Amino acid sequence: MRPITETMLYDDAIAVVMGAAVPIAIKDRVALLDADGRVLSSDVMAPLDVPPFDRAAMDGYAVVAADTFGAGTHAPKTLTCVDRVFTGQVPMRGIKPGECIEIATGAPMPDGADAVVMVEETDRNGEAVRVMTPVYPKQHVGRRGADLAAGQVVLAAGQTLNPARVGAIAATGVIDVEVFAQPSVAILSTGNEIAEPGQPLAPGQIYDINRFTLETIVRRHGGVSVALPIAADSVEDLSAALDTALAHDIVVFSGGSSVGERDLILDVLHQRGTVHFHGIAVKPGKPTVFGEIEDTPVFGMPGYPTSCLSNAYMLLVPFLRKMARLPAWTPQTVEAPLTRRIVSTTGRHQFYTVRIVDGSAEPAFKASGDITSMAHADGYIEIPAQTDVLEAGTIVRVKLF
Amino acid sequence: MRPITETMLYDDAIAVVMGAAVPIAIKDRVALLDADGRVLSSDVMAPLDVPPFDRAAMDGYAVVAADTFGAGTHAPKTLTCVDRVFTGQVPMRGIKPGECIEIATGAPMPDGADAVVMVEETDRNGEAVRVMTPVYPKQHVGRRGADLAAGQVVLAAGQTLNPARVGAIAATGVIDVEVFAQPSVAILSTGNEIAEPGQPLAPGQIYDINRFTLETIVRRHGGVSVALPIAADSVEDLSAALDTALAHDIVVFSGGSSVGERDLILDVLHQRGTVHFHGIAVKPGKPTVFGEIEDTPVFGMPGYPTSCLSNAYMLLVPFLRKMARLPAWTPQTVEAPLTRRIVSTTGRHQFYTVRIVDGSAEPAFKASGDITSMAHADGYIEIPAQTDVLEAGTIVRVKLF
Repeated sequence: MRPITETMLYDDAIAVVMGAAVPIAIKDRVALLDADGRVLSSDVMAPLDVPPFDRAAMDGYAVVAADTFGAGTHAPKTLTCVDRVFTGQVPMRGIKPGECIEIATGAPMPDGADAVVMVEETDRNGEAVRVMTPVYPKQHVGRRGADLAAGQVVLAAGQTLNPARVGAIAATGVIDVEVFAQPSVAILSTGNEIAEPGQPLAPGQIYDINRFTLETIVRRHGGVSVALPIAADSVEDLSAALDTALAHDIVVFSGGSSVGERDLILDVLHQRGTVHFHGIAVKPGKPTVFGEIEDTPVFGMPGYPTSCLSNAYMLLVPFLRKMARLPAWTPQTVEAPLTRRIVSTTGRHQFYTVRIVDGSAEPAFKASGDITSMAHADGYIEIPAQTDVLEAGTIVRVKLF
Repeated sequence: MRPITETMLYDDAIAVVMGAAVPIAIKDRVALLDADGRVLSSDVMAPLDVPPFDRAAMDGYAVVAADTFGAGTHAPKTLTCVDRVFTGQVPMRGIKPGECIEIATGAPMPDGADAVVMVEETDRNGEAVRVMTPVYPKQHVGRRGADLAAGQVVLAAGQTLNPARVGAIAATGVIDVEVFAQPSVAILSTGNEIAEPGQPLAPGQIYDINRFTLETIVRRHGGVSVALPIAADSVEDLSAALDTALAHDIVVFSGGSSVGERDLILDVLHQRGTVHFHGIAVKPGKPTVFGEIEDTPVFGMPGYPTSCLSNAYMLLVPFLRKMARLPAWTPQTVEAPLTRRIVSTTGRHQFYTVRIVDGSAEPAFKASGDITSMAHADGYIEIPAQTDVLEAGTIVRVKLF
C-alpha cells in the first residue's frame, strides 16, 4: 500500500487539467432541430435575402408615400383602392399616384408603392380610402434583406445554438448544420465490490453509483457518455478495459477508493502514459489521478460516490466544456446565511454540500461514501484551503445542482 | 379586419395563463439513465440498506477498539494480523482481542472488529502490527444503512432528478423510475406565406421560423414538441388542424401576424372553446391569444418570429414548467450598464434584446419581424409598462438566452 504523501493544490490541479484540454476538431452534421446547444463548426451563410421581398409590416394600404403628405384627421387624403393582396400572394398589379392596394402584414409590396398606411389610420367607403395621417417613404415596410442579406454570415463558427439562433438558420431555409462533435467520454467503474444495478448483490458487493452520476453529468455538459463494463481490480483487466476506452476522447475511471486499487490505475498510467498528478488538496476527492495515454486524457476518480461526483463538478465539467467548445459553466447560485458553524481545518479546498431551508444554507454533508450527502442537498459551497472556520450566519454563495 | 382595441396588462395575462396551468397527472416509467431532469411521480423507497454491511472507511487494520486505547507513537500497542480482506470479498474469519485483520476501504468488517486503524498509523513486521494511535469504537467504519436504510424514502414524489439523485437511486439497485410524463405540445405554424425550410420558396413565401424556435424552447423546458403540418389561413383548415392538435396537452399556434389571420384563430376558439384574452400590453407580442378548447390550453402566438419567441419566454415557458411540475425557470443573469438610452413610451411591458459587449448592455433590437433581433443578442431586459426611459449607464439585469 502506497499512501499519498504529497497533494497538489486545487488551483494548480485545475490549471493542469485545463492545460490538457484540447478543443475538439471533429465535425458532425446534424438536423437543425437537434442542434440546440451545439457549437457551430463553420459559419452559416444566408443563401437568400430574409425577407426575400419588400413586405408590409402592418395591415393597411400600400400607398405612394408622397400622396399622404399633409394628411390629417380633419384633412384626409383620399386614394382609390384598386386591388387587395393577402399574405402569401403576389400582387397582380402595381399602383400609380392616387391609388392604393389593401395589404396584409407580410404580403409583398406592389410595384410603385413605397409605404403602408395602417388600417387604423384610414376610413373606407367602397373604393375610396381616406387616409388620416401621413407616412414617410419606407414606413411600415419590412425591406428585403433587412433581417438577413444573401451572403451574410448568419452565425459564426464557434457560436453555441439556442432557440433564436435555430430560428435564424431556419429563416434561411437551411435544415442541417455543421457542428463540432461532442466529446465521447468512456466511463469505467472499477472494483471487485461493484455490481450493476438491476442484478442481485453478492455478499460484500455494493451497487455501482459512479457510472450513473458520471454519465448524467457528462450528458449535461456537452459530452456523449459511453459506459464500459465494470472492470475487476487487476492490472490485466484494467489494461484491457483501457484498450477499449482509448477509442474515446476522454477516459474516466472511477474506483480505487482504496490505496491498493488506486495504485493499479497509477501503475497502468505510468506503464502506458504520463501521470500529471495523483492526490489533490481537496475534500472530498483527494485520491484523484489525472494523466494522459496516447494523447487521451485519463481521469482516475475516487470510488466514493460523493468524492467522485464532486471532482466531476470541480475538474471534469470545466475540462469537458472546454473540449466541447462550450462556454464555462456558470451554475445558478443563491446567497444564504449558514445555519451553523462549519470548521474546515483540513488545509484542503472543500466542496461542502448544503440544503436551502427557509432561505438559509444548512450543512448537508454526511460522509464521502454517502451519495445522500449530495442527493439530499440542493447545492454546494466551496471553502478555500486557507479558510478554517465559517461562522453561523456567514453569507455563503451556494452553487445549485 | 378587426383591430385589437383593448389589451390586457402583462401581469394580468401571466396570472390568467398560470391559473390555467394544471400540473400533469400522467405517469411514465423511464430508465434511470434517461431520468435526469425528470420529476418523480412517486416516492422511491430503498429496498435494502446502503451500504448493505458495515465496511472499512479507510485502508488499514480492523481491530477491537479497546485494544488500541492508550496507544501512542512512543507506546504502540502490538496486535497479531491473522488475515487480510480485500474489497468485494467476505471476511473468512472474525477476530478476538489482540488480533487484527488487514482491510481495504469498502471491504466488509470481520466479526469481532469494531474499528479500523489507518495504515498510516501503523508499522508492520511480519504478522506483528504496531498501532501508534488509539481508535474509538466505530471509528473509520461505514455503518450498514448509514447512507440509506431499507424502507427509507430515498427521494420523494415531486423531486426533480439531477446527477446526485440519479446516483442515489442507482445505489439501491433500482434501474427505472416512475416520473410524470412530459407535456406534449402540438406546434402549428399557420399562414399561406409560410414554407417549410428545405423546400424551395414560391413567390411571396418565407420560411417557417416559429416552429423551430418553439420546438427548441419546448424541449428545453420539459415538454415534448410535436410539429403539425403548416396550416393554411382558413377556418376549415385551422379547425381540421385543431382536431389533431387537441390530442396533445398544449396547443401552440403561431401565425396570424395580420389582423385578418388572427381573427381566424379567434373565430375558431370562440366557436369551439373559450377565449381568455386576445391582445396583451407587451412589446413585441401584443397580438397574442390565449384560450381553452375542451380543457386543452391553446396559445395563439404572433406570426412575427421575435414576437412569437419573446412571448414563448414570457408566457409559454412559465406555463409549460408549471404543467411539467418543474421549478420556475431562473435564467442566468448578468448586470451591465446600458450603452445608450432606451425610450419606451408605448405603455407596454417591453421585452428588449441586448448584446453584452465589453461588459456593457448594447441594445440589439431591430424589428419584431427580424429573428436576428434575438439571434444576434445575448439576452433580454424587461422594461415595465410605466417606465418610459432608461438612460445610458443605467444598470440593467440581463436575462441570458
